[in-house]
Amino acid sequence: MENQCKPFIRKANYYETDQMGIIHHSNYIHWFEEAKIEFMDQIEFPYKKLEDMGIISPVLGVNCQYKSMVRFGDTVAIYVQLTEFNGVKYTISYEVKNVVSNELCAIGATNHCYLTKDGHPMTIKKGAPELYEKCMEML
Amino acid sequence: MENQCKPFIRKANYYETDQMGIIHHSNYIHWFEEAKIEFMDQIEFPYKKLEDMGIISPVLGVNCQYKSMVRFGDTVAIYVQLTEFNGVKYTISYEVKNVVSNELCAIGATNHCYLTKDGHPMTIKKGAPELYEKCMEML
Amino acid sequence: MENQCKPFIRKANYYETDQMGIIHHSNYIHWFEEAKIEFMDQIEFPYKKLEDMGIISPVLGVNCQYKSMVRFGDTVAIYVQLTEFNGVKYTISYEVKNVVSNELCAIGATNHCYLTKDGHPMTIKKGAPELYEKCMEML
Amino acid sequence: MENQCKPFIRKANYYETDQMGIIHHSNYIHWFEEAKIEFMDQIEFPYKKLEDMGIISPVLGVNCQYKSMVRFGDTVAIYVQLTEFNGVKYTISYEVKNVVSNELCAIGATNHCYLTKDGHPMTIKKGAPELYEKCMEML
Repeated sequence: MENQCKPFIRKANYYETDQMGIIHHSNYIHWFEEAKIEFMDQIEFPYKKLEDMGIISPVLGVNCQYKSMVRFGDTVAIYVQLTEFNGVKYTISYEVKNVVSNELCAIGATNHCYLTKDGHPMTIKKGAPELYEKCMEML
Repeated sequence: MENQCKPFIRKANYYETDQMGIIHHSNYIHWFEEAKIEFMDQIEFPYKKLEDMGIISPVLGVNCQYKSMVRFGDTVAIYVQLTEFNGVKYTISYEVKNVVSNELCAIGATNHCYLTKDGHPMTIKKGAPELYEKCMEML
Repeated sequence: MENQCKPFIRKANYYETDQMGIIHHSNYIHWFEEAKIEFMDQIEFPYKKLEDMGIISPVLGVNCQYKSMVRFGDTVAIYVQLTEFNGVKYTISYEVKNVVSNELCAIGATNHCYLTKDGHPMTIKKGAPELYEKCMEML
Repeated sequence: MENQCKPFIRKANYYETDQMGIIHHSNYIHWFEEAKIEFMDQIEFPYKKLEDMGIISPVLGVNCQYKSMVRFGDTVAIYVQLTEFNGVKYTISYEVKNVVSNELCAIGATNHCYLTKDGHPMTIKKGAPELYEKCMEML
């Protein structure tokens, strides 16, 4: 899974470790969000721009499979790809790799929709056509 | 999904909210862990006992589907069930419900294995036969 | 530091541990908030009631001194006391004790003010006189 | 408070916001730790090196005063300075500034000691003389 976007680079923090001496699995969900935010910056449609247009994009689902441990001080690269998109819902997929060993640490995905600020589903073909075009091109 | 164990009861904390005014999705992964720990207490095989026997039980995968929002101050009940178990790997499933409205807030699961402290896979039929019996009975 | 309010009782979670095998120091700041919220419930002026009146109460400062380690599975009691209050600003002090050993684990405090939702300082003697009375009585 | 070390640069994450629409105060404690770790990298004595020498450096105390709000997407610079050091205990001070407005967001400090892995206090003049020299020079 490689695409035109640069991966998000991230060091594992001490406060993210647990008593097994590894990064606690819950933190990868944070990392996915950080990588998604950077991905939106890279495609020049920052998440803040979406919110400023009155559109929110909540998480409908998340999953992560852990392949190898990440430890304090390790640097990971998170590769992000839009893997499903229909203008109403979309899926972003993630690969977490150790930048030194290139070992695969985790894969996962998050599922999202678009809502107006008062909570109604919306299609961004009308609400944010520029983002719609960008997303269609990436599939 | 109901079983003989009592659900884990939990208030949503202020620091778990995000700027959408709801509980951030990453926190449910913490809640699953809290509910799993309480579940092990209830079946009288606390996680600490497992670790004291030299057995660790890392998370291989996690998933969560969000059904309705939880807000600061809401109390949720988390129903926990052992849904897969073969002595080497197992799956725990979770249902998060609002205790007042009984509305379903989220469902999810975590996948685990058993390892010795030096990282070798193990079967608990030999390593922790008492836990093996308890788990077999729950399926 | 004892007062008429019951302490907030709390188990230390696995995800709060770090690779030293102890609860990471940052989590105590979460615990203080949980204890403060429960304290407001106990004095029958829940934080939500304050927010519903259009009043927010941001944190101006926080401090914590760590006295002895807390480990996964330990249960702590957090004693909360209003130690300063002038209707505009206030200080809440905390003592964290191990419920089994009664050992002192940490002491700390948080400093707060009252603001209107658009960010103006306010005095609750006018804005929330019932809370003002409750606080004055506790000093 | 400026010194020879470069500040630690950090974007505020979405998951760090709370329902006030600002970064929750607890996260600054994480940021201090990240900045301290980078500081140790910059002085070419990474924290991992210390741990590999059998020395841990737990947090004895922390404080933070919040001066102005940080919001999702803001980039902050955290200036780090060793402000007290006697070979046994030390204090690191932090200034958090908004990189765009240069506004001061928060100041704080963490207090630490050095311990052997089995928990005995130690003086690094003997245990890690190279680090001792570096620290003395910075005062």
